Amino acid sequence: MRKVVVNLRERNYPIYIGWEIFEKFPKLCLSHKIKPHVAIITDTNVSSLYLDKFLNALIKNGYKPEPIIVRSGESSKNLSTAMKIYTQLIKINLRRDETIIAFGGGVIGDLAGFVSATFLRGVNLIQFPTTLLAQVDSSIGGKVAINHPLGKNLIGSFHHPVFVFSDISLLSSLPKREMICGLGEVVKYGIIKDRKIFEIIENDVEKILKPNPDVLLEIVHRSAIVKSEIVEKDEKEKRLRMVLNFGHTIGHGIEAGLNYRKLKHGEAVMLGIVGESFISLRRGLIDGKTFERIKNLICSLGVKFPKKLLDKEKILTHIGYDKKIFSDRLNMYLPLGLGKMKFVDDVKFAEIEKAIEFIYDL
Amino acid sequence: MRKVVVNLRERNYPIYIGWEIFEKFPKLCLSHKIKPHVAIITDTNVSSLYLDKFLNALIKNGYKPEPIIVRSGESSKNLSTAMKIYTQLIKINLRRDETIIAFGGGVIGDLAGFVSATFLRGVNLIQFPTTLLAQVDSSIGGKVAINHPLGKNLIGSFHHPVFVFSDISLLSSLPKREMICGLGEVVKYGIIKDRKIFEIIENDVEKILKPNPDVLLEIVHRSAIVKSEIVEKDEKEKRLRMVLNFGHTIGHGIEAGLNYRKLKHGEAVMLGIVGESFISLRRGLIDGKTFERIKNLICSLGVKFPKKLLDKEKILTHIGYDKKIFSDRLNMYLPLGLGKMKFVDDVKFAEIEKAIEFIYDL
Repeated sequence: MRKVVVNLRERNYPIYIGWEIFEKFPKLCLSHKIKPHVAIITDTNVSSLYLDKFLNALIKNGYKPEPIIVRSGESSKNLSTAMKIYTQLIKINLRRDETIIAFGGGVIGDLAGFVSATFLRGVNLIQFPTTLLAQVDSSIGGKVAINHPLGKNLIGSFHHPVFVFSDISLLSSLPKREMICGLGEVVKYGIIKDRKIFEIIENDVEKILKPNPDVLLEIVHRSAIVKSEIVEKDEKEKRLRMVLNFGHTIGHGIEAGLNYRKLKHGEAVMLGIVGESFISLRRGLIDGKTFERIKNLICSLGVKFPKKLLDKEKILTHIGYDKKIFSDRLNMYLPLGLGKMKFVDDVKFAEIEKAIEFIYDL
Repeated sequence: MRKVVVNLRERNYPIYIGWEIFEKFPKLCLSHKIKPHVAIITDTNVSSLYLDKFLNALIKNGYKPEPIIVRSGESSKNLSTAMKIYTQLIKINLRRDETIIAFGGGVIGDLAGFVSATFLRGVNLIQFPTTLLAQVDSSIGGKVAINHPLGKNLIGSFHHPVFVFSDISLLSSLPKREMICGLGEVVKYGIIKDRKIFEIIENDVEKILKPNPDVLLEIVHRSAIVKSEIVEKDEKEKRLRMVLNFGHTIGHGIEAGLNYRKLKHGEAVMLGIVGESFISLRRGLIDGKTFERIKNLICSLGVKFPKKLLDKEKILTHIGYDKKIFSDRLNMYLPLGLGKMKFVDDVKFAEIEKAIEFIYDL
């Protein structure tokens, strides 16, 4: 079992990563002084596969877990589901010094995270991510949120977990499409910070998708390091975390332009990565060869992009409403090469437009 | 204009207090670098009295205020009103570096505070409290929350304002009953920390209710100091803030036992102060003379307590469910005299019972 520590001003917390480490979870709870009464928030998918096993492991170690199961899928990430969870938590009388375990993918991590940030003004949270996307991205960094009918993640908070627990053997049961979505963020880490990640995917993508324990452990571990280092530094330098949005300005625009249908988040981000790298290419910040490697890697993942459905005007409109923009010119990190980025504050709409046109012809 | 600074680990922020300082508000916004686009969350009561004047003052100084008005009263402090506010904020396109002004009493401070803690994962907040209760208590300390149908303040967060602005001349328009509710918390500060406050109320209660600018300024200022000192110290010593719950364990029980009807929060707290002081008396922690002073002061405020409606069993049940209790014995701060408290962790239900019986016979 590997361990990455996230060092924050207020406190540090570990991310545990390993293959078939499921049984170690209760012992870690004990060593982190988690009280016996815990709520497990999970979804119908994850619970049908793993909940019994999880409950048994906890009960065997003296825990009193109370499962709260929501319907799987993005549509649960809203205020009305949060309200139902609050009601359950009150009924089971979860107290301020007790703990919520978010057991599922990104939706569960965000939803259960938001609930634990706000129930009784904040209870303990453990992130137990069960998808690649959640393990490498959403479970790390303390961002939690729910959606508003008018936009994603508009209602949220920052709430760091006591620890994150990533059993990567659970990814064996993950549909291939979900794995590839997670890979979108992993490719991003390769470009923004750790070129070794990029190279592993270039060389061994099949081993990741199979999955092969060693290769998977390597990329999940490296990804956790990249994400946590950026989160740590961001505490001092607010702008830094924006590097994590690489691929996301255009990616979000594409997602929203498709009304969050057809493409999953990770898939839209892949297109965003190509688009934003294209801006970098046109500005002469990266060379043609590096750009080709990025483009080819993403195309090699086999995602079917619904190019005919992409509506440039819609995408541009949504980018204009993106909540991360502070002025009329776009702030963005652009790649200078694999593993190196540059902050620019003057990306014009025309550049975005050209990038989207390039994506059309991919 | 007086100024009290709250010193927190993450940052400091000032509380401005004065009589007829309304016009200084926009200048303070400018000096605190508040961006022009601001949302004002207020209620129907406050807006009918002061909103035009407030908007004019802001506009005259280059601000673009957008008012969001909710129905006045505790019933607005819920998730569905919060949802309506989120929708409004999205529609006016409030951005992450812009500001929400909570312009109203405790309900508005809590509701607008919760919304600003969670909208876009947190936007700036200015507390502009317009009731005595809000000026001396709820606007200071960063606690924000909304109610759940099963209990008050169960959904919330900590979110400190950029500054707090208390124009005490606004209290002239406050109904006498509201003033007296605020005085409940002020009496509490006198007992837990600053006996001078207690003595001013003993000697000059009429001047406060009139209100007389000098006396009112003195007690609001002193109260702000007490509250902010406790909030500051609590950052290091988690238990300390519990001293602010003096009168509230029994007070909350009484409120809940009456289904939050008949008695206002501040009035229930007054009964709680008498009840918890009675526990102190029976334990020999305060002398009979001090206890009499506390009891007489509260009785002199002229609140009509609906003693016949108080149901001991109900009150005790609600105290048992109080979210601040970590074990089966109650934690509580009890007075040792005026301005001095002691933490005890072994208050029995039987003691609470006797205290409630004493309140019956007040």
